[in-house]
Amino acid sequence: METTQVKAFGTISAEAPLKELIISRREPIADDVEIDILFCGVCHSDLHTARNDWGGTRYEAVPGHEIVGRITRVGSAVSKFKVGDLAGVGCIVDSCRTCSSCQQDLENYCIPGFTGTYNAADKHLGGHTFGGYAEKVVVHQHYVLSVPENLDPAAAAPLLCAGVTTWSPLKHWNINAGSTVAVVGLGGLGHMAVKLAKALGAHVTLFSRSANKVQDAIDLGADQVVISTDDAQMNAVQGTFDLIIDTVPYMHDINPYVTTLNISGTLVLVGYLGPLEPMLNSAPMVMGRKAVAGSVIGGIAETQEMLDFCGQHHIVSEIEIIKMQDINEAYERMLKSDVRYRFVIDMASLKAN
Amino acid sequence: METTQVKAFGTISAEAPLKELIISRREPIADDVEIDILFCGVCHSDLHTARNDWGGTRYEAVPGHEIVGRITRVGSAVSKFKVGDLAGVGCIVDSCRTCSSCQQDLENYCIPGFTGTYNAADKHLGGHTFGGYAEKVVVHQHYVLSVPENLDPAAAAPLLCAGVTTWSPLKHWNINAGSTVAVVGLGGLGHMAVKLAKALGAHVTLFSRSANKVQDAIDLGADQVVISTDDAQMNAVQGTFDLIIDTVPYMHDINPYVTTLNISGTLVLVGYLGPLEPMLNSAPMVMGRKAVAGSVIGGIAETQEMLDFCGQHHIVSEIEIIKMQDINEAYERMLKSDVRYRFVIDMASLKAN
Ligand SMILES: [Zn+2]
Ligand SMILES: [Zn+2]
Ligand SMILES: [Zn+2]
Ligand SMILES: [Zn+2]
Repeated sequence: METTQVKAFGTISAEAPLKELIISRREPIADDVEIDILFCGVCHSDLHTARNDWGGTRYEAVPGHEIVGRITRVGSAVSKFKVGDLAGVGCIVDSCRTCSSCQQDLENYCIPGFTGTYNAADKHLGGHTFGGYAEKVVVHQHYVLSVPENLDPAAAAPLLCAGVTTWSPLKHWNINAGSTVAVVGLGGLGHMAVKLAKALGAHVTLFSRSANKVQDAIDLGADQVVISTDDAQMNAVQGTFDLIIDTVPYMHDINPYVTTLNISGTLVLVGYLGPLEPMLNSAPMVMGRKAVAGSVIGGIAETQEMLDFCGQHHIVSEIEIIKMQDINEAYERMLKSDVRYRFVIDMASLKAN
Repeated sequence: METTQVKAFGTISAEAPLKELIISRREPIADDVEIDILFCGVCHSDLHTARNDWGGTRYEAVPGHEIVGRITRVGSAVSKFKVGDLAGVGCIVDSCRTCSSCQQDLENYCIPGFTGTYNAADKHLGGHTFGGYAEKVVVHQHYVLSVPENLDPAAAAPLLCAGVTTWSPLKHWNINAGSTVAVVGLGGLGHMAVKLAKALGAHVTLFSRSANKVQDAIDLGADQVVISTDDAQMNAVQGTFDLIIDTVPYMHDINPYVTTLNISGTLVLVGYLGPLEPMLNSAPMVMGRKAVAGSVIGGIAETQEMLDFCGQHHIVSEIEIIKMQDINEAYERMLKSDVRYRFVIDMASLKAN
């Protein structure tokens, strides 16, 4: 298969810093779209993959799955896009397209597993996929999104992962005007959950462990902030929420949040994979038909739906633009939650180098 | 308030056996229905309340919330019923009627708490409510059900608790023809879950720890039985079920069942209140949008819906009829799961005594 060499940024081992690399992209085939990458958001998954925190990282690793750019070439069968379009790529660049999930536009739950934008088996070139910390990317048109031209392309980039990860549960659990939604954690995911829930017409509460995020949350659109360490504030919201989007990425006690669910409400975990400790108590769940669920990113169709919605409502992520060469420092700052609320790489810095 | 004295069966302490007692029933007021009790099912809650297993039992305790009988008197405002009708009373004899749950016909989730058929504060007479182990009961018409005349009244009695407890989640999670449902545990609740799910058109699987319930489950309508201790059988049903109704009343590991849920599927606990140990793992929930939820009994409207459905489909409980005087022995047999699948008391035995 014909390939092009492009500049990228990645790492050769868990311990090594990210540095400039040369990677291969396939020449676009019939259904492919080639995108000149303008911006790429920096997701926590990027850092964890680069450092092999979850195991299974294949090196050289090139992260990045919040990609926005301009289409430079399209294959002969491409009908959805044309050269010059503003396009996006999220966490998924391929899937089986035949399983029950793919048939329902839930490629994120593809039964044999979707092809991740990075660190997944590359069906075309062998080896593994390389993400958006690169000059260009080539993706099958089905997995390419149309990005509204009225949005700042840098600030739109995080919509491709953080945006759809919070949008998907909001839609699945039927949030609309009059719904009560709470968000646990105000980071890259949490701040998008607040913005999207508010734009859908919900009454939005942020749960925070400290008072120092109150003003930020209100500025982002939250109707109130509940300090989760304050018993009186927690008591005041017992039995309140139709949906709680819990974005916390580490083990934490969800029992105090479950009791703040309304009858038939759901707490959905979008940031944490692992054992629920302390033990989840079923009593308030049974006595109030409450549910604890999980959700991961979203399907392609709902990603497009979310982008269109963001275009109509002028919603983008709060970002700090960095140069590609500053990614290692950015990772260190992310570990300290020292970012409001998403780093986005200006890929001009890589191209100029 | 005027009262009538009626014979009942109950206990004066956690340690004492149940014996004949005299209790007071109010004279029917405007909205009241008086029912001559023909049969009363024996629920595990009866035993736990009589023995104060959950704490909070008020003595004298008269259990029983699976009541079927004939209406003997109606108050001046009663429009739904007339003397001679076959009627039922389940777990709920009153609620606030004004909260958001009551307004949605979810009296079982009444926010200030519904009035239980036994062991709840009696709004009319003071003291506490007495259940269906009695000659008669007087209940506000809103909480009285119409029992289809074509059903065996003895075998219909367990529908009032065991039936609606499994019906409510089947309806809430939209089970219909083509759905895949699994049931954990084949007791009073589980055998009703199998029958009702099958009648709704679902493909029904019973999870059982031992092979000795296979034939029973098939006879009740299950399409298959999966032995939960058999790895090969469990592997064969990974990712299968839209809904799992878990009727097990004690702490048990639900993780092996969660992974058998289909994408977006729900495991609903209807029998167990307490900590989920071993710890629930969120990873399969997040990666497959799976949920763990709870549910308790059902609302009055859905209880009537279930009874009407059972009338149309000729569904009743599998029962063993006992005399009121044999209740203490029946409790001992229930503790050994020595009942297929529900004891029902023939109240003629109490009246004749
Ligand atoms: Zn991400
Ligand atoms: Zn698929
Ligand atoms: Zn019961
Ligand atoms: Zn109420």
